[in-house]
Amino acid sequence: MVKTVTLSFATKGECDLKDITPAVARALLGSGLSSGVVAVFIPGSTAGVTTIEYESGAISDFREAVERLFPSDRPYRHNERWGDGNGFSHIRASMLGPSLTVPFRDTRLLLGTWQQIVLVDFDNRARQREVLLQFIGE
Amino acid sequence: MVKTVTLSFATKGECDLKDITPAVARALLGSGLSSGVVAVFIPGSTAGVTTIEYESGAISDFREAVERLFPSDRPYRHNERWGDGNGFSHIRASMLGPSLTVPFRDTRLLLGTWQQIVLVDFDNRARQREVLLQFIGE
Amino acid sequence: MVKTVTLSFATKGECDLKDITPAVARALLGSGLSSGVVAVFIPGSTAGVTTIEYESGAISDFREAVERLFPSDRPYRHNERWGDGNGFSHIRASMLGPSLTVPFRDTRLLLGTWQQIVLVDFDNRARQREVLLQFIGE
Repeated sequence: MVKTVTLSFATKGECDLKDITPAVARALLGSGLSSGVVAVFIPGSTAGVTTIEYESGAISDFREAVERLFPSDRPYRHNERWGDGNGFSHIRASMLGPSLTVPFRDTRLLLGTWQQIVLVDFDNRARQREVLLQFIGE
Repeated sequence: MVKTVTLSFATKGECDLKDITPAVARALLGSGLSSGVVAVFIPGSTAGVTTIEYESGAISDFREAVERLFPSDRPYRHNERWGDGNGFSHIRASMLGPSLTVPFRDTRLLLGTWQQIVLVDFDNRARQREVLLQFIGE
Repeated sequence: MVKTVTLSFATKGECDLKDITPAVARALLGSGLSSGVVAVFIPGSTAGVTTIEYESGAISDFREAVERLFPSDRPYRHNERWGDGNGFSHIRASMLGPSLTVPFRDTRLLLGTWQQIVLVDFDNRARQREVLLQFIGE
């Protein structure tokens, strides 16, 4: 059985991390499924998804590492062509990836105790972001 | 229901990005499935898969970031042992990852408007690459 | 059909790479499924999963790249708050990602010849690690 759910989040951009775990857990309860996987997918090329211990220290460290490895102030060919100034956002999103697959059982996401699912908005402006959840199971 | 499709692409290596979205979309239409997920998987240890806005600027920026973070001209232990000179390819492939899961509905891939699925061949030579698609759904 | 299997591995931490392919292949044979995908998931925020050619050269190169890009001796806010000294582990795990989806057919994982599934324990101490396998298929 397959259930599609679309979530929507207001993000601030500039490597904004949103904890979407509660929303995914609620959607699972509403799906009618008990065991399976949920594919969390970001339809867009300037945001990604991963998991992290969602506390201010790790969030700050994550943002610092991203800025250090994929600096926002380098020249990017994407910017030269399109003038939207978010070349760094595209590269970060491609490297992190837009998909995450999380197992569930007995209607519960099988995450670690200190592990949350995060939408990471790498764009250079505030956005309304969609996140697609595809539940597959029984 | 499960449908397996194997695609094949000629790649040039050296961080060659191939837009495989049209081929995945065609395979979906041929699968007989309407809603579900497709697991895109690279069977090999020197290529990966992700999504990107497939335009020359972002492609060039992606390649530059990869070369900057995982230089091809560093010494690699893999090269010392095997002499094939593609140590950098293995590291890049492991960091990007070989799998991507994309949802679909009404026989349509639920990608963003400016988002394409790309096979990234990190090897140091031209290859004929297989990409496995496992469609699961109804 | 859905089958959940939990594997357990003793890891040494400090970017310890464990080849879990044989254990995943055995679990597949025991699942009763023939074709589908297995979602390999790490429930925790200081380890990740990917694939690599599991030989000492590539393993060493992977560990060196991780230490170079996400140094263990930088100051991390996570450490300031929690004092557990594994701030670098969290960032590495979030960037690599906790999930991998591998297709199978005729009860065989569709990996490349030189491609193994690896649990990467980024934590700064030895652990007993769980890896969740969610098999979905027919």
